[in-house]
Amino acid sequence: MLPVIETIFLRQMASGDRLFLQVYKFVGDQPGKKVYIQSNLHGAEIAGNAVIHQLIEFLLTINATDLAGEIWLVPVCNPMGTNERAQHFSPGRYCTYEAKDWNRIFWDYEKEADDLVEFTKSQLHLTPKVVRQNYLTIIQEQFAKLLEKINSPTSVPFTESFRYQLQSISLDADYLIDLHSSTNQALDYVYYFCNREDSAKYFLLDFGILLDKYDGDAFDEAFIKPWLALETLFQQLGREIKFDIEAWTLELGTGMQMNPDSVAKGVRGVKNYLIQKGVLQIHNLPYQTKNDRMSFFTSSKRKKYYAIAGGMIQSRVELGTQVKAGDQLYQILSFNKESKLPSVIDIFAQESGLVYDISTNQAVNQGEFVLGVIS
Amino acid sequence: MLPVIETIFLRQMASGDRLFLQVYKFVGDQPGKKVYIQSNLHGAEIAGNAVIHQLIEFLLTINATDLAGEIWLVPVCNPMGTNERAQHFSPGRYCTYEAKDWNRIFWDYEKEADDLVEFTKSQLHLTPKVVRQNYLTIIQEQFAKLLEKINSPTSVPFTESFRYQLQSISLDADYLIDLHSSTNQALDYVYYFCNREDSAKYFLLDFGILLDKYDGDAFDEAFIKPWLALETLFQQLGREIKFDIEAWTLELGTGMQMNPDSVAKGVRGVKNYLIQKGVLQIHNLPYQTKNDRMSFFTSSKRKKYYAIAGGMIQSRVELGTQVKAGDQLYQILSFNKESKLPSVIDIFAQESGLVYDISTNQAVNQGEFVLGVIS
Amino acid sequence: MLPVIETIFLRQMASGDRLFLQVYKFVGDQPGKKVYIQSNLHGAEIAGNAVIHQLIEFLLTINATDLAGEIWLVPVCNPMGTNERAQHFSPGRYCTYEAKDWNRIFWDYEKEADDLVEFTKSQLHLTPKVVRQNYLTIIQEQFAKLLEKINSPTSVPFTESFRYQLQSISLDADYLIDLHSSTNQALDYVYYFCNREDSAKYFLLDFGILLDKYDGDAFDEAFIKPWLALETLFQQLGREIKFDIEAWTLELGTGMQMNPDSVAKGVRGVKNYLIQKGVLQIHNLPYQTKNDRMSFFTSSKRKKYYAIAGGMIQSRVELGTQVKAGDQLYQILSFNKESKLPSVIDIFAQESGLVYDISTNQAVNQGEFVLGVIS
Amino acid sequence: MLPVIETIFLRQMASGDRLFLQVYKFVGDQPGKKVYIQSNLHGAEIAGNAVIHQLIEFLLTINATDLAGEIWLVPVCNPMGTNERAQHFSPGRYCTYEAKDWNRIFWDYEKEADDLVEFTKSQLHLTPKVVRQNYLTIIQEQFAKLLEKINSPTSVPFTESFRYQLQSISLDADYLIDLHSSTNQALDYVYYFCNREDSAKYFLLDFGILLDKYDGDAFDEAFIKPWLALETLFQQLGREIKFDIEAWTLELGTGMQMNPDSVAKGVRGVKNYLIQKGVLQIHNLPYQTKNDRMSFFTSSKRKKYYAIAGGMIQSRVELGTQVKAGDQLYQILSFNKESKLPSVIDIFAQESGLVYDISTNQAVNQGEFVLGVIS
Repeated sequence: MLPVIETIFLRQMASGDRLFLQVYKFVGDQPGKKVYIQSNLHGAEIAGNAVIHQLIEFLLTINATDLAGEIWLVPVCNPMGTNERAQHFSPGRYCTYEAKDWNRIFWDYEKEADDLVEFTKSQLHLTPKVVRQNYLTIIQEQFAKLLEKINSPTSVPFTESFRYQLQSISLDADYLIDLHSSTNQALDYVYYFCNREDSAKYFLLDFGILLDKYDGDAFDEAFIKPWLALETLFQQLGREIKFDIEAWTLELGTGMQMNPDSVAKGVRGVKNYLIQKGVLQIHNLPYQTKNDRMSFFTSSKRKKYYAIAGGMIQSRVELGTQVKAGDQLYQILSFNKESKLPSVIDIFAQESGLVYDISTNQAVNQGEFVLGVIS
Repeated sequence: MLPVIETIFLRQMASGDRLFLQVYKFVGDQPGKKVYIQSNLHGAEIAGNAVIHQLIEFLLTINATDLAGEIWLVPVCNPMGTNERAQHFSPGRYCTYEAKDWNRIFWDYEKEADDLVEFTKSQLHLTPKVVRQNYLTIIQEQFAKLLEKINSPTSVPFTESFRYQLQSISLDADYLIDLHSSTNQALDYVYYFCNREDSAKYFLLDFGILLDKYDGDAFDEAFIKPWLALETLFQQLGREIKFDIEAWTLELGTGMQMNPDSVAKGVRGVKNYLIQKGVLQIHNLPYQTKNDRMSFFTSSKRKKYYAIAGGMIQSRVELGTQVKAGDQLYQILSFNKESKLPSVIDIFAQESGLVYDISTNQAVNQGEFVLGVIS
Repeated sequence: MLPVIETIFLRQMASGDRLFLQVYKFVGDQPGKKVYIQSNLHGAEIAGNAVIHQLIEFLLTINATDLAGEIWLVPVCNPMGTNERAQHFSPGRYCTYEAKDWNRIFWDYEKEADDLVEFTKSQLHLTPKVVRQNYLTIIQEQFAKLLEKINSPTSVPFTESFRYQLQSISLDADYLIDLHSSTNQALDYVYYFCNREDSAKYFLLDFGILLDKYDGDAFDEAFIKPWLALETLFQQLGREIKFDIEAWTLELGTGMQMNPDSVAKGVRGVKNYLIQKGVLQIHNLPYQTKNDRMSFFTSSKRKKYYAIAGGMIQSRVELGTQVKAGDQLYQILSFNKESKLPSVIDIFAQESGLVYDISTNQAVNQGEFVLGVIS
Repeated sequence: MLPVIETIFLRQMASGDRLFLQVYKFVGDQPGKKVYIQSNLHGAEIAGNAVIHQLIEFLLTINATDLAGEIWLVPVCNPMGTNERAQHFSPGRYCTYEAKDWNRIFWDYEKEADDLVEFTKSQLHLTPKVVRQNYLTIIQEQFAKLLEKINSPTSVPFTESFRYQLQSISLDADYLIDLHSSTNQALDYVYYFCNREDSAKYFLLDFGILLDKYDGDAFDEAFIKPWLALETLFQQLGREIKFDIEAWTLELGTGMQMNPDSVAKGVRGVKNYLIQKGVLQIHNLPYQTKNDRMSFFTSSKRKKYYAIAGGMIQSRVELGTQVKAGDQLYQILSFNKESKLPSVIDIFAQESGLVYDISTNQAVNQGEFVLGVIS
């Protein structure tokens, strides 16, 4: 089947050149869910582009009858980030004009939903499907007001028109998948939200991290936070309801790389997820159902180590090492300009855990990131 | 009189080179207040360095008997920001490694003061001086815990050790003055806090902006917010108390410049403030007492205009213009790459107000800052 | 009259977005010269964009019969440079990926013209017009080979495909005008080449600088150098010949600004030049013929002052000041981290001359540019 | 034995903070050669710092009687480059203020040696040792003039005072070793000069690249070029003379990393070189004498591949692959914003050779570096 391809104007630069988003929409013959998948929101995190490319190649080979609902794919979704260069490297994590993380700029309906309790009360006796539609309508109405501001004489900083474009095409999705990697070097894992552990296993990855504390500014958070809030309110008012709405951030390896193994895991995971969710309905696709040996962690237990002194990192434990409190994590080879010999500083683990992220750069100014441990 | 000069280690770089802060402490023969003055927290905002230099020159000429209390001066207080270059320009507004505004990183005691009501109740019948001392002790105890974390194996991102150094020398001040300018181009004015309007006039500037909404992450905010909170609690508990604690941010003109007129205003203002506050006690210093024609604004009424299209800014109103709603503010000369003639877009004021800040760069990508209006 | 507008593909970015050049071609009813005018080759030097815009507006009002030959206009000719940002500023002077000045990348035929003496001998008895055509053909043939390399598997660094695009549309021009300004802050003046002093006066500016030593890598140099070489060879072989081929770089004020006065001077100068050169043939256009009080300098006598110490620049002489050897040029307010008082360093002129360029940034690390004097 | 440690002031920053070089001088009891070793001239190329650290550790264990001559070691020799950050990465290849490669800034005596023929004639009948001294004296006298300019009111751009410091401590060395790595990812190899192939083998590396064409601006080039020129002139005047003066650039792996294997090779190579050269005279040090299976290449046969289109690099051949003309080198996964499907572009080798360098960043804007092949 062929996708509908939509090109969306994103930004006019000072030179008059224009940047765009491009959405590949595969629309099935059968009704169903809307799946939204994007990649490369952080400029260095390119692995997801290969994942989306391979998904497109795959979807071109199936029939529209094999697809229930729609799959929207948005590769290279942040041209500003993707194209930024610092000499030969690709930083692209932040909008440097505004000093903002490109993935901490999104609009979270819940922050302005003052009357959510009242709304919930009004929906207590309606079917989940109707509630879903009513709530989405309110979110969309509120969201539409952002456009007025964008088009007013004051307009808005670029991050606000950028988020508007990405959220305008994803706000009504049922399943949202944001393909990241470490900007540095990390394991392959998935970030998931409260009560979505079972679906997380469909991605067939070895690790999952529950986002247990967050502010709603990341893309996945901003999408799902209003729905989780509604679920909680229903519960408080005595009714259990769980919307079939899910948001995922897949972390696929190392920044500036499209590691074939990480890419393959990403493709396999997304395809299996779509099959398990009934979006892909193809005979004899030989996939596992879920990974039952998956390890789960919680994001609030991530502990980052920053260099206590400037210098060069050496003898660092490998990515994926399970460390115990007191184990040596790394050394700083510390030079000085005070007529002394260089020294070596040993750094030991404060707590036990899994080394899930390490810095690509082994030179550190004091206070720069060295590695992350999760327990 | 001569100052005590203290040099404080700030950061070891990867190369082993070290950055420092340097404090000039003028200590009077008479007891009195502690005044803390720093400059150049944002890298491009250098005018305050000349102000501090001229204050040092002046203080060298007076006698220790002319000074009640202490004046601590910290010029070029952010070496990372001051020394950063982008080709020939000096951005320096953000810590780009962490994507943080150098003036939104500070520790605000109030955010962790869970038992403030209880504390206030316990102080209701004490003298302001004793309350002042008790509260400061608590703040300092809490602050000391930050150092433990800095010195632990995980340590902290650099912004957190940087803020620790600056706050460790200023936390017990009575009057705190942070010398800024626009990173772009702005009028000379002072930011002040709730109930400090009278003292604001001592700076002899034409404009003052009341910080009516803030989160406590800026240097001045983090300093004064706990004290304002305490005043409010006292009031709620039926006692009016006002601590003689003040925080000021002086905005002295244009980024990357030490405009002599802005510098002179800064020097005049700070000296007059110190005289009116009884810190400088010198016969026959011929200063005004206060500027009674000062105009006051509130920070929540700042409205920033961002470019609605990419292009070149022309025909912009002058800095300091009083505009009415509907007045033309500027034009965007907008080029394109779609085989059309260039176009000119007129932008009109949404509301009336004073143009207090304009961008130095007249080329704008869509969504970049053009000017600020305050009403 | 209306221009033909051509949009030329320039570069595909990693995100798939594309950058373009756009040429406005005003083609007269009468045969004549080809004039090529571009602006904004350095990203911060935007004044020329307004000049080109006003020239387009003007040319739209004339008739095709008023124009002999063609005028090609290329505003915002370097999207990479124009759109680059360092926080709020626009550096854009260098291709940072390759560490190259955007105006030191151009292809200079003379560097590979090994048989120029032979060619000259073969042309000794031909008319200038025929020589012009023969030589241009050779240059173009050689130039065409660059495209083969660009399209080969190794391809070329971006600066080489960029220069190819700009030179492919300008190589056959008769008059070439490159609109710059200082990246910092400078007087309005024109750079001109050997034996073109008379035409330089047509621009009606107060200052002109003869490029007496150059390597051919700048846009104007690369264009005219082969022709000057040919003139010299003819002369050595006993024949005086002067091609009516001219290259100019107009410097219009200050970086990041479109100063209305600099823009007006640019527009006036270019229009007068076109009239005097017979390209514009309009009745009663009330222009001066030339500026006979123009001051001329030579580029090899530019002397740049770099900061002998790190610090803040103060008391600097004004732009446009005529200084004598020994005059004070500026002061460095020099701070330290060695427990000493700040010091002030006076810098005096080594030679007399005109202060024609000053740094926008008044904070300097040791070895950074402060001002330029020409004599 | 203990080194003499000298700390040399390098640069005062705008903030008053200072940068330094630090030299570790191991001075033997026996007379002999001066060896100069530095690391980290390019900011990202940190592996050499570990090499120098291990050499220092080793030299601390030997006796002064084991050393003939002097070994000077300068780790982290470019604080500007080492400490620069672009978000989490370390570019550091260029002085961005001046847009210069930190290793293309050095002073080459030969470029101003106008009377070299005359000098050579005057030395024809002297011993090599005397010629060596006479020539060095001339070079040093000429070099000393640079300091006058540095200390004059105009002073010089920072790169010129930086090169002065590094060259002032190395100009009189006999053997000079500059420890680099790829800024990207490369094999371990050594750059060597004309007629120094035999000594190259002492480094025990698998690959060596002869610098057959160069301009003298790199650190090793600037050091040895005047001596090679003198050798050539002697030869032209009928006398064969070869100075025991050698310059080496060791390339040790990947940027931003201290790969233990590359570091170990560097340490082993330098130690073996020092033994073979008679600088280290230690009983029973179990080293090979030379690597006789070393492969040699010439630098003029390096061929760099730049992206012919923007996109993501995939299926690239591994570093170290021997390719033939026509072999597939890599693919570009090319996205677009013109409503088309993504495409994949295959790139084939133009010539056969060894893939010795590949880009760390697998996202490329058109015209960015992808890989290097040498034959």
